[in-house]
Amino acid sequence: MENKMKNTDKFTLINELARRRGFFWQAYEMYGGVSGFVTYGALGAKLKQKIENKVREFFVSNLGIMEIEGPIIAPGKVFEASGHVDNFKEPMVECLQCKKKIRADHLLQETAKLSASEAEKLSLKEIKETIEKYGVRCPDCCGDFGEPKYFLTMFQTTIGPYSDAVGYGRPEAAQGIFVEFRRLYEMAREKLPFGAMQIGHALRNEISPRQGLIRLREFTIIDIEFFFDPEDPECFILKDVEKEKLRLVLAENKLRGSEEIVETTVKEALEKGYIKIAWQAAFMALAKRLLMDLGVPGEKQRFVEKLPWERAHYSKQSFDQEVYVDRWGWVEVSGHAYRTDYDLKQHMQFSGVDTRVFKEYEKPVEKEKTFVKPLMAKLGPAFKGEAQKIAEMLLEADPEEVEASIKERGYYMLGQHRILPEYIEITREKVKELGRRFIPHVVEPSFGSDRLFYVALEYAYRVKDDRVVLSFPRDIAPIQIGVYPLVNKDGLPQKALQVRELLANEGFAVEYDDAGSIGRRYARADEAGIPLGVTIDYETLKNDTVTVRDRDTWKQVRNSIDNLPELLCKYFRKKISFEDLGNPV
Amino acid sequence: MENKMKNTDKFTLINELARRRGFFWQAYEMYGGVSGFVTYGALGAKLKQKIENKVREFFVSNLGIMEIEGPIIAPGKVFEASGHVDNFKEPMVECLQCKKKIRADHLLQETAKLSASEAEKLSLKEIKETIEKYGVRCPDCCGDFGEPKYFLTMFQTTIGPYSDAVGYGRPEAAQGIFVEFRRLYEMAREKLPFGAMQIGHALRNEISPRQGLIRLREFTIIDIEFFFDPEDPECFILKDVEKEKLRLVLAENKLRGSEEIVETTVKEALEKGYIKIAWQAAFMALAKRLLMDLGVPGEKQRFVEKLPWERAHYSKQSFDQEVYVDRWGWVEVSGHAYRTDYDLKQHMQFSGVDTRVFKEYEKPVEKEKTFVKPLMAKLGPAFKGEAQKIAEMLLEADPEEVEASIKERGYYMLGQHRILPEYIEITREKVKELGRRFIPHVVEPSFGSDRLFYVALEYAYRVKDDRVVLSFPRDIAPIQIGVYPLVNKDGLPQKALQVRELLANEGFAVEYDDAGSIGRRYARADEAGIPLGVTIDYETLKNDTVTVRDRDTWKQVRNSIDNLPELLCKYFRKKISFEDLGNPV
Repeated sequence: MENKMKNTDKFTLINELARRRGFFWQAYEMYGGVSGFVTYGALGAKLKQKIENKVREFFVSNLGIMEIEGPIIAPGKVFEASGHVDNFKEPMVECLQCKKKIRADHLLQETAKLSASEAEKLSLKEIKETIEKYGVRCPDCCGDFGEPKYFLTMFQTTIGPYSDAVGYGRPEAAQGIFVEFRRLYEMAREKLPFGAMQIGHALRNEISPRQGLIRLREFTIIDIEFFFDPEDPECFILKDVEKEKLRLVLAENKLRGSEEIVETTVKEALEKGYIKIAWQAAFMALAKRLLMDLGVPGEKQRFVEKLPWERAHYSKQSFDQEVYVDRWGWVEVSGHAYRTDYDLKQHMQFSGVDTRVFKEYEKPVEKEKTFVKPLMAKLGPAFKGEAQKIAEMLLEADPEEVEASIKERGYYMLGQHRILPEYIEITREKVKELGRRFIPHVVEPSFGSDRLFYVALEYAYRVKDDRVVLSFPRDIAPIQIGVYPLVNKDGLPQKALQVRELLANEGFAVEYDDAGSIGRRYARADEAGIPLGVTIDYETLKNDTVTVRDRDTWKQVRNSIDNLPELLCKYFRKKISFEDLGNPV
Repeated sequence: MENKMKNTDKFTLINELARRRGFFWQAYEMYGGVSGFVTYGALGAKLKQKIENKVREFFVSNLGIMEIEGPIIAPGKVFEASGHVDNFKEPMVECLQCKKKIRADHLLQETAKLSASEAEKLSLKEIKETIEKYGVRCPDCCGDFGEPKYFLTMFQTTIGPYSDAVGYGRPEAAQGIFVEFRRLYEMAREKLPFGAMQIGHALRNEISPRQGLIRLREFTIIDIEFFFDPEDPECFILKDVEKEKLRLVLAENKLRGSEEIVETTVKEALEKGYIKIAWQAAFMALAKRLLMDLGVPGEKQRFVEKLPWERAHYSKQSFDQEVYVDRWGWVEVSGHAYRTDYDLKQHMQFSGVDTRVFKEYEKPVEKEKTFVKPLMAKLGPAFKGEAQKIAEMLLEADPEEVEASIKERGYYMLGQHRILPEYIEITREKVKELGRRFIPHVVEPSFGSDRLFYVALEYAYRVKDDRVVLSFPRDIAPIQIGVYPLVNKDGLPQKALQVRELLANEGFAVEYDDAGSIGRRYARADEAGIPLGVTIDYETLKNDTVTVRDRDTWKQVRNSIDNLPELLCKYFRKKISFEDLGNPV
C-alpha cells in the first residue's frame, strides 16, 4: 500500500477525507445518522455522475443498449412474480433480554467462525442448532436468543388509500425492465438480441448494515438485462473481447476449498465451458475494462463463480466481479447472472401477458403436429351446460400434454374436469411452421454504483510528500480544471475570472480559487482530484499565456490561452498527454 | 394550435406518440398499470437527462450551486420536524356502499363546481357540509359518503427490523438538503450566500392521480435551496436579470377574482414590492429563461402568487411558474417559495443541533447586554437539592425573556419552577460583539422534472405535411444526429457505419438507420426529434462529402466529412446556424 500515513487503513482515511471534502457522509447526521444511508456532497455527486456516464459510454453509446427510467415503488405482484417476496429475506435472531435483532448468518460468522458461504447455507433449524452447539449469546447483553426467523429485506409500503394495495421499494432495477419487456421489444424493432439498462436508487432493508458505501440500505443500482435467443446465442462483440484476460475463481475449485485463480482469455473460458454463455463472457470482459477505466488494475480484479446455494433463485450461472480493497479484502462490484427465461416466464404466468417472441424461419419448416378435436356429441351429454366452455378450453390446451396424459393415465384433467379418451379425437397433421415462438433468455450484468464509486476513490488515493492526492483517471475527475491567480492583486484575479469564464463556456467543469497561498490551493486541488491547474501570473498580463500544472507529477507547461480550449478538449478525451499541452516551464 | 389532426387534443396525441416511440408510458402495464407511475423509454430517458443537464448548466455550472445526492427514504423525525407529518395530507371521503375513496376537494370541484382555490380551503367540517348541501354522491355507484378524513400522502415504511422505526419516502428533496446544512455550509467555506440542489425521485401517495405526467405518485423533483443572510439579502446576479420581464398574477388581484397579468421587469417587481426577496425574483427570471430554452415562449408562461391558504406551511411568499398546455390550461412547472428560516429552525429544535451561522462584523460592535445572575444564597433554601440545576438552567435562559416576565408578571416560569425576583440579580453590561449568530433564510426554486419534460414535448410537437415533427431545441434533443445510407447497397451502408463511428467517437448521440426508404427514415427521425440527418450517397464514395438535413425546414446542405465534427460541435452549442454547416444542395 502506498499509504503509510499513521498506519490507519484506507477505509478510515477515505471516509474521513470524504466527509471533510464533501464526497459523501452518513445521511441524517444531525439526527444521529441512520445506518445504511449516505449523502453525496458536491464533489461526490459529480464523481458519481461521471462514473455512471462512463457506464453509459460503455453500454449505451458503444453497445447500443437502451437506457430506461422506471419507478422505485412497484406493486406487490411484481415482486411476488419475481420470487422476491418468497426469497428476498435474511435469517434473524432476537435477543430475548435486550430485544436486539441480529442477522443470524453474520452472527454465526463472527461467533462460531463459520465462513460466509457456510453460514449462508444454513436453514433456520440449522441456525438454531449451531447457536445451541456453540452457546452463542447476545454480544451486547449476553442474553439468550429466541427462535430464528426470516426477515423480508424489502421495504414495504402501501400504494394509494387502500391498505391492501401493498407496494415494495425495488431491491433491484431488473424487474422494472422485465415487466416492460413488450414495449422494449417493440422499441428494439422486434429483433433479438437487445439490451436495456436502468440506473437508479434501489432499496434493501438490511437488518444491520455496516461497511459504509459497501453495504447500504439505499443504493444506486445499474442493471442491464440483455435478451437473446437461446438457440442463437452468438455474440456480435465477441471479436472485440475474445482476447481479454479474465481471472476466474471457479466453483469446482471453491468446492475443494481453493480460491485458485484460473487466468484465461474470454475465448478459452467459453471453449473450456467455464462460462456458459458468450454474451455473459463478453459482459464480464467489458466489466473488467470498465473497472480499469475507473482506475482499478486488472490484477486487483477477479470473477468468482457462485456455488449453487450462493446463487440468487433466478440464476443458472453467476459470477461476482470482485475488487481488492484495503479494509475488506475482495468486495463484489458487479454480478453477472445468467437469468435464463426465469423472469419473463414468471411474469407471463402471473400477469397472463405473453412474453414470448416470434422468430421467423428463413424458410417455412414442415412439421407434424398433434391436434386435439373436442367431440361435442360426447362432451354434451357428459358436461351439459358446460360442454361448450370445456370444448373451448380443450382447444387451448397443449395437445402433446393431453395425449401424453391420456396415454399414461387414461384421462386428462382439464381443471376440475376429467376428460376421457372418447370425448376427443387426436389427429396428426403436417403443417408449415413459419417460425418459433419462445421466451428470450437473459444475461444480466449488474453494477453497484456506490461500490464503483468507493473503489474508484480508494484506487485514486495516493500520498505524495505527506499530502493526499486523488489521482482519478482524468475523464472521471469531478472537477476538471482549477483556475488560480498567482497572487490576489494587480489585476490577476480579474484575468483569472475571465479564463474561468472562457473555459466554463467551453463546457469544462472549472473551479476558481483565490483563497490562501498558491501552494495551499494546489494542495487543496490535488486532494479534490482536479487533474489540471491553470495559473494566471504576471506574464499572462504581458503575453496572454498561462501555466498548466499536472496533479500527479506536479510538472508545469506554458501555453497561450487561445490554444487551451482545443488542447484541453483532446486531453480530457485522452487523445493527447499532459506534455502536449504546452512548453515545459 | 398547429395541430389540426383529427381534432384530438395534444395530451392524447402526445401520450400516444410517447407510448409508440418509447418516450414514456404508464408503468407496470402488464399488471394492468398502476396510476401515478411511469416508465421512460430509451428516447424519454435521454430527453429527461438532457433537461436535467440543462438545469445543471443553469444553476450548477453558471451559478455555482452545489449538487448533492441523498436518500429517498428518511427517518420519521425528519418529516416530523419539517411539518410534513402534520401538514402533508389530503381530505378524503369513502363511499359507504362501494368503498371507493375519493379526494374530497377534487370531488367538490367536479360536483359542486367549486374552484380549486375554494375547494382547497375547506376544513373537514366544511367539506361535509358542502357534500350535504349539494347532495353529492359517489360518482360510481351513487352511494352515500362517510365522514371526511385526512389521508397522509407520504409513503410510509419501516427502516430495519424494528417496527417502531418509521420511515417515509421523501415528498420533496428539500429536507435532504436542510438536514445536511452544517456539512454544506462547511463545503461553501462558511460563507453566505450559497445554494444546494438535489435532483431525484420523490414520492407522494396521491389518492387517485390522473393527468399522466402532470400528477404522479413517483416523480423527479429538482429542489434548490438557496441560503442567504436576511440582513444582507443582496443578489449578486441581479444585474444579469433585472431587465428580464416577468408576467405576474398577483395575490391582491386574485383576491378580487381577477387573473390579470402584471408584466414587469425583475427590477420593477422588486421596487414595487410584488416580490419580496431579490434572490427569489432572480430565480424566477432564470426559471423563465430555462423554460424558454426548453422551447416554451415567454408569453406561454406566467408566475402566479399563492394566496396565504394556498401556500405550503413553510412559506412566506410563493409563486408558481405556470405554462399553458393544450388539455389542462395553466399548469405549474416550478414553485418559488420564500421558506425563511422555517426549516433550519425546525430541525434545530427537533435535533438539538445548532443550525445558526456566525458572521463577523467588519469591526466589533459595542452593545449593552442583559445578564441574569442566579443568587445561590436564595435559590438554595427555596429549591434545596435542585438549586444547582436550576441555577445552571437560569444561566442558559434568555435574559431578556426573564426580565420581561418578571416585569410583567412578577415571576418567571423556568419549566415547573417559579423564579421570584429575589432569587436573581439582573445586570446590564457593555460587551463587544464580534459578530452575529443567526439562522440563514432560504428561497427555494423547485422544478418538477416530469412536467418540464411534458411541456418540452408539447411545445416541440408540430405537424408538417400531415406528419409529426418533434422540434426540440437542438441542445436537448435525445438523439442529435441520424446517419443514413441513401440506399442499402454498393458499399453505402459500410461507409455510413464509418461515419456513425466517427461521430459517436466525437461524443455525439448518433443513430444509424438503414430500414426502409430514405423518406421513411427521415419521417421516423423527425418524429423522434433528431435535429440533423447525415446521408451517405454515391457522391460520398467519390469525394467524401455528405448531405446534412435539417429536421425543421427539411433543407439540406453538403460538406466534407472531415469538416463535420467541429462544425457540428459548434452547431449543437448554438454558436452557428444550420446554414453554416455546408453549401446548399
